[in-house]
Amino acid sequence: VLTEFELIRQIIGPMGGLNPCREDVRVGIGDDCAVLVPPPDQELVTSVDTLVEGVHFPREIDPGSLGYRSLAVALSDIAAMGAEPNWFTLALTIPNAEQDWLTAFAQGMGSLASNYQMQLIGGDTTKGPLTLSLQVFGFAPHGEALQRCGAKSADYIFVSGSLGDAGAGLGQLQEGTQEQNQYLMKRFTHPSPRIALGKALRSYANACIDISDGLSSDLGHILSASGLGAEIDSRALPLSDPLVASVGEAQARDLALTFGDDYELCFCIPEEYLNFVEEIAAELPLQITKIGMMTPTPGLKIRGMGDDWLNESKSGYRHF
Amino acid sequence: VLTEFELIRQIIGPMGGLNPCREDVRVGIGDDCAVLVPPPDQELVTSVDTLVEGVHFPREIDPGSLGYRSLAVALSDIAAMGAEPNWFTLALTIPNAEQDWLTAFAQGMGSLASNYQMQLIGGDTTKGPLTLSLQVFGFAPHGEALQRCGAKSADYIFVSGSLGDAGAGLGQLQEGTQEQNQYLMKRFTHPSPRIALGKALRSYANACIDISDGLSSDLGHILSASGLGAEIDSRALPLSDPLVASVGEAQARDLALTFGDDYELCFCIPEEYLNFVEEIAAELPLQITKIGMMTPTPGLKIRGMGDDWLNESKSGYRHF
Repeated sequence: VLTEFELIRQIIGPMGGLNPCREDVRVGIGDDCAVLVPPPDQELVTSVDTLVEGVHFPREIDPGSLGYRSLAVALSDIAAMGAEPNWFTLALTIPNAEQDWLTAFAQGMGSLASNYQMQLIGGDTTKGPLTLSLQVFGFAPHGEALQRCGAKSADYIFVSGSLGDAGAGLGQLQEGTQEQNQYLMKRFTHPSPRIALGKALRSYANACIDISDGLSSDLGHILSASGLGAEIDSRALPLSDPLVASVGEAQARDLALTFGDDYELCFCIPEEYLNFVEEIAAELPLQITKIGMMTPTPGLKIRGMGDDWLNESKSGYRHF
Repeated sequence: VLTEFELIRQIIGPMGGLNPCREDVRVGIGDDCAVLVPPPDQELVTSVDTLVEGVHFPREIDPGSLGYRSLAVALSDIAAMGAEPNWFTLALTIPNAEQDWLTAFAQGMGSLASNYQMQLIGGDTTKGPLTLSLQVFGFAPHGEALQRCGAKSADYIFVSGSLGDAGAGLGQLQEGTQEQNQYLMKRFTHPSPRIALGKALRSYANACIDISDGLSSDLGHILSASGLGAEIDSRALPLSDPLVASVGEAQARDLALTFGDDYELCFCIPEEYLNFVEEIAAELPLQITKIGMMTPTPGLKIRGMGDDWLNESKSGYRHF
């Protein structure tokens, strides 16, 4: 049986925690606290996300994917603020300390962390039902972080990538069918936090959010925070070919509107910056799709398949 | 049934999250991330602690005490660094959203938070087995944070308060006996993070740690980090009268050496600063007790009841 201290070493080795390299970390893992030196010209952004087995991820997920996905989900909040990720802490509750499981988990998480030169600066491992809590940090220049509030009437509403894929991928993972679509599955297990897009949007977007609970629900947060409404066209939602082939167009649209878990960004752009958004899309490169417009009247209206206008009826993920 | 958003509002109201007041918080709860503005002359210290029902606290604990204790335990790490607490995030996993439970929990946690003008800057509530993960933050002037390393041979070793009380209090809580000693019980449910002591020690202590897993185990971390040994006298350990009356002197000493959960500080002071420690103790006021000395030979030696010397045999709390 590994002691907690051996276990921590096991986990953090592959994540670079034992080989601190960032200049803004004066004391890393191994003391009562980390000691950090944020640069004076930057603001610090931070977010915490908890994932519980059986609630936020299915028991069927492999540990490498779980490690990758957990950090990606947390980083998506950093992306939505237009910030540059730097540090993270991991509070990991596990039923027992299995070396193979931990190694695979740490490699999955570590591979994403190293993409962004992120350093693990603290953690806690405890015994109990499988639960992860990740606190992620990032920097943004003073006053430049994107927020949910700030959208203006007549702003165009955009989303990145394609929507609904992760919902279908999760379904396949849970069913454990032989004929799985690797693209859809990967969209659930290995979402891409849109860090580069978020940073590029700093100067152009009036508001931004990541789509975790479903487009209608998350766009609703922008509406409430900005005191406005929106009209979107469900026929404009970006759907991937594998998704439409797998579940048909009607269900694909439903998943895209309400499922979440894709961790794409939804953002609002004033007309004078439309050409910059096209340039950003071409440079990254990343699919970026106009889906609607902000309106002065509160409420979300969704133009459906039959040209009818719906008041918001599709609600996103309910946590309780 | 409350939605997650109503639930969050319920929890954070009493904790001041909806009434942000700190100047170093530009965006508080309610966006994808908090946006923070650390003052340029301070370093940022941070630590994460997870508490799982049935592992770190008994099912018998009331929600108000649980809220208080969880934040106190986390703040103890800030105290050990000699830092001033400022912000915290709470990741709360609960089996169901009961309003009475949440209100009591939030009041318990909020009362301690407001003692230190701390602001809740983020959180996540999820459904699952009762688990709390708290990330706490604090400031310390550049280069002044206390660490585990840095103790010197011949430094005197001190502990604050009395040791072993929380262990006896936990036993009473679990047994649910009629004749409970309120002092001992309170030492488990409402530990005092030694923030004022930690800050006062910044200029005098060569090393510091908080006692969470047991004195022998936590002092062991100072020894490893400093590359030294220590000799302590178990007869010098500060034992409270209620503890000795409740369990007898022999068991009291055992609890004091190995149990932890008191969240007192253990720290190393060079001889030339001994008088300052006395002054600090008188000013706070807080009992501070010399229990031994650092030695060049690695290993912890504990002088016992019968004047014998023991190598470290009492190990602290094992997490797995």
